[in-house]
Amino acid sequence: MPINNGLSKNQLLALANMVSASNIKTDKNDLSYFGGDRTRIYTPSPSAIVFPQTLQHVQDIVQWANKENIALVPSGGRTGLSAGAVAIHHEVVVAFDRMNQLSEFNAIDRTVKCQAGVITQQLQTFATEKNLYYPVNFASAGSSQMGGNISTNAGGINVIKYGMTRDWVAGLTVVTGKGEILKLNNGLVKNNAGYDIRHLFIGAEGSLGFIVEATMRLTKAPSDLTVLVLGVPQFSALMSIIETFQQAIDLTAFEFFSEQALQKVIACHDLPRPFKTPTDYYALLEFDNVNADIEANVMALVEQCTQHSWVSDGVISRSLQQRRQLWRLREDISEAIAPWTPYKNDISTLISNVPPLINEVENYVNEHYPDFEIIWFGHIGDGNVHLNILKPDHLDKTAFFEQCHTVSKGVFTVVEKYQGSISAEHGVGLIKKDALRHTRSDSEIALMRQIKHAFDPKGIMNPGKIFDLNG
Amino acid sequence: MPINNGLSKNQLLALANMVSASNIKTDKNDLSYFGGDRTRIYTPSPSAIVFPQTLQHVQDIVQWANKENIALVPSGGRTGLSAGAVAIHHEVVVAFDRMNQLSEFNAIDRTVKCQAGVITQQLQTFATEKNLYYPVNFASAGSSQMGGNISTNAGGINVIKYGMTRDWVAGLTVVTGKGEILKLNNGLVKNNAGYDIRHLFIGAEGSLGFIVEATMRLTKAPSDLTVLVLGVPQFSALMSIIETFQQAIDLTAFEFFSEQALQKVIACHDLPRPFKTPTDYYALLEFDNVNADIEANVMALVEQCTQHSWVSDGVISRSLQQRRQLWRLREDISEAIAPWTPYKNDISTLISNVPPLINEVENYVNEHYPDFEIIWFGHIGDGNVHLNILKPDHLDKTAFFEQCHTVSKGVFTVVEKYQGSISAEHGVGLIKKDALRHTRSDSEIALMRQIKHAFDPKGIMNPGKIFDLNG
Repeated sequence: MPINNGLSKNQLLALANMVSASNIKTDKNDLSYFGGDRTRIYTPSPSAIVFPQTLQHVQDIVQWANKENIALVPSGGRTGLSAGAVAIHHEVVVAFDRMNQLSEFNAIDRTVKCQAGVITQQLQTFATEKNLYYPVNFASAGSSQMGGNISTNAGGINVIKYGMTRDWVAGLTVVTGKGEILKLNNGLVKNNAGYDIRHLFIGAEGSLGFIVEATMRLTKAPSDLTVLVLGVPQFSALMSIIETFQQAIDLTAFEFFSEQALQKVIACHDLPRPFKTPTDYYALLEFDNVNADIEANVMALVEQCTQHSWVSDGVISRSLQQRRQLWRLREDISEAIAPWTPYKNDISTLISNVPPLINEVENYVNEHYPDFEIIWFGHIGDGNVHLNILKPDHLDKTAFFEQCHTVSKGVFTVVEKYQGSISAEHGVGLIKKDALRHTRSDSEIALMRQIKHAFDPKGIMNPGKIFDLNG
Repeated sequence: MPINNGLSKNQLLALANMVSASNIKTDKNDLSYFGGDRTRIYTPSPSAIVFPQTLQHVQDIVQWANKENIALVPSGGRTGLSAGAVAIHHEVVVAFDRMNQLSEFNAIDRTVKCQAGVITQQLQTFATEKNLYYPVNFASAGSSQMGGNISTNAGGINVIKYGMTRDWVAGLTVVTGKGEILKLNNGLVKNNAGYDIRHLFIGAEGSLGFIVEATMRLTKAPSDLTVLVLGVPQFSALMSIIETFQQAIDLTAFEFFSEQALQKVIACHDLPRPFKTPTDYYALLEFDNVNADIEANVMALVEQCTQHSWVSDGVISRSLQQRRQLWRLREDISEAIAPWTPYKNDISTLISNVPPLINEVENYVNEHYPDFEIIWFGHIGDGNVHLNILKPDHLDKTAFFEQCHTVSKGVFTVVEKYQGSISAEHGVGLIKKDALRHTRSDSEIALMRQIKHAFDPKGIMNPGKIFDLNG
């Protein structure tokens, strides 16, 4: 694994010759800003930040890095939560902010080419202008970049209907760690000609090479998204509700949050309760209200759930404004709990395993850390829950995070028991590297190392992320 | 690459000790039947056919083959059209016919575990019994097996809405060429913990290892599928029709066929024309007619297309029987042209590139082989067309196929020009190995070899398929 000790003057000059000096930053603040992401655990310390503007720039940088044995770290919107794009060993950061063009829109294929630095929201807006829809959506869509989304296979709130970022990538142009340009799948729908290398790059967190351009698929826009918030007294009833609804209609979202989460969010943002009577849990369902039949169907399903006592109360959005307000009850939770410096964990299991998993994690935390308050919320419709533990006032940050580190081990043991994932949608990066064995076997990790070696024999691409080369 | 010269008595005994003698066949007819697929170009010559009944059997066979340096060929429903499962070098065929159980159905997760030998139709029927739906469907669904479907990422007639087999695989249990068991993805919806090795096995045609079991996702069944057949005078108008419909409704299929194809199919099966006036091309559209609004919408779209002269006439199915009859106009073409010993090619490009691609292929064939009749049909809604050339009476089979071999080269050159795929949904196998370079670059093929080496270092898994180890 290459270890840099800063760049020499000659190396910086060579870099400037390739991409021009105006596309390089070495100023202290820039190094700190562009060398990090949303995690605050590691101190970024890159040697330089390079902003390629063309595919040729990226290839030149990689070939140069191979020759000089310099480690490279890709940087997108820096919204990551696993330190996958953090440079802590004097690496050169390759930031895609200056490659943010959309091109070659095709209305028949319903595809558009995005450079890696295109912001998620930019693509969403573009699609809307074309009377189409890019359905992958999540809290950081206003800053996350497509290259990063693809490298972490971003998920979010509409996975139940639309899948992950993976499902919308019709083609990729990448530069491998060896410095070769690959054009993968060329935007085709059907292509069964050998191994689908495109899927290896999706979710690889930049460890095999750089994603420089992607052909993204768009789809028909929903016509009238409508939100339902239901009060759910028993956690396990969420399973019966999801089964009942999915048999009858296509949901675009099925989220949940706890009464504790609701209390925090309404206090922080001065929002009204969805309905008067508090219950322990809430389900937020969204569907495309295309015609009166569907709404009548939904009302009958709510009635059915109420008769079984799965649901105690409910409210349906009657306007775009109401829909947005109901979504805030779920989406603003992270912001509402931020003052408690929460420890966060992003885990998943089979949907049907969520109730026992949550129960065991809660028992474990309550037993070992009785003064920790847990806030649960997440995308229960796809098996992905976000565990949030609030810092008690009497603990300082360092002591709290130290204890949480131990909590993690307990949580991951439960996740492993239920054959779940230690990272549902945030990736592994530096933060979850040590936990990878709870989800992937030693054989799988050994194969990942061999695959990485094929694409990046010198190990210059984002070294130390996901797994170490010598484990 | 291991080359077998038949098995020794001791080797056969060892095999019988592992799986029991009743799970081995060495009889001439069995060797011929189980060693082949639907292609008739190569003469199957396996050493033996083994029928594992458990995961342990498969692992034992692979470990034994590694030790003895014996090549293995996987066999599913033997419906392949690329000779991906044909044993021509005395390999041992591992046939999954005796591993055909469905288990662990979960109504909340909407998943079920399938052993590799489960027949596609068996899964479809199972899903229907559970009030759910397995949407990947194609002509050979009555005999193709799930292990083979996954290994070739089977597509078919509903890809426009439901995607390929790839999109329904939630988990895989595989035995790698090294003999290791991997449990990939465990049925999870969201799992971003390292490279997704599952996607490497999908479409790998058994060259990395054996798919032994798969967790397949099911979905809500459509309520009232309805078919529309439209007369389309100009090929290019098909593009306008697809764009118009997809902006407004979700299609479950968008197929096309030519007047020549229609003439053959109605003559062969004594079917009525869809409507009186012949046109050069026909589009078959299918949608889920869930309520009156959708049908009114469809009728307005047909009207719009007629006003633009994209459509000359049309018919809509009013019963299940009518729907089936209209589908036969498209689905029975293969059978109808079989007496002409057709040369078939399965190619794809961007949907929007289909008109120029078809035009160039047609010009090429007409210029070089003026007496060849071309029958076009296929899944135009996903860019996949099936080229069929009928054998003129005056040519014998051998001469015809020799000439077609040259035709292929011309076709693949056009496919490459349009950045299409030389195999849209049939896989590469032996038949298209030499053409792989028209769709995949040398760098990609070199990477595929390295990936294969990681999973199958001795090269015992289906050697010589997709690519040669030394190219």
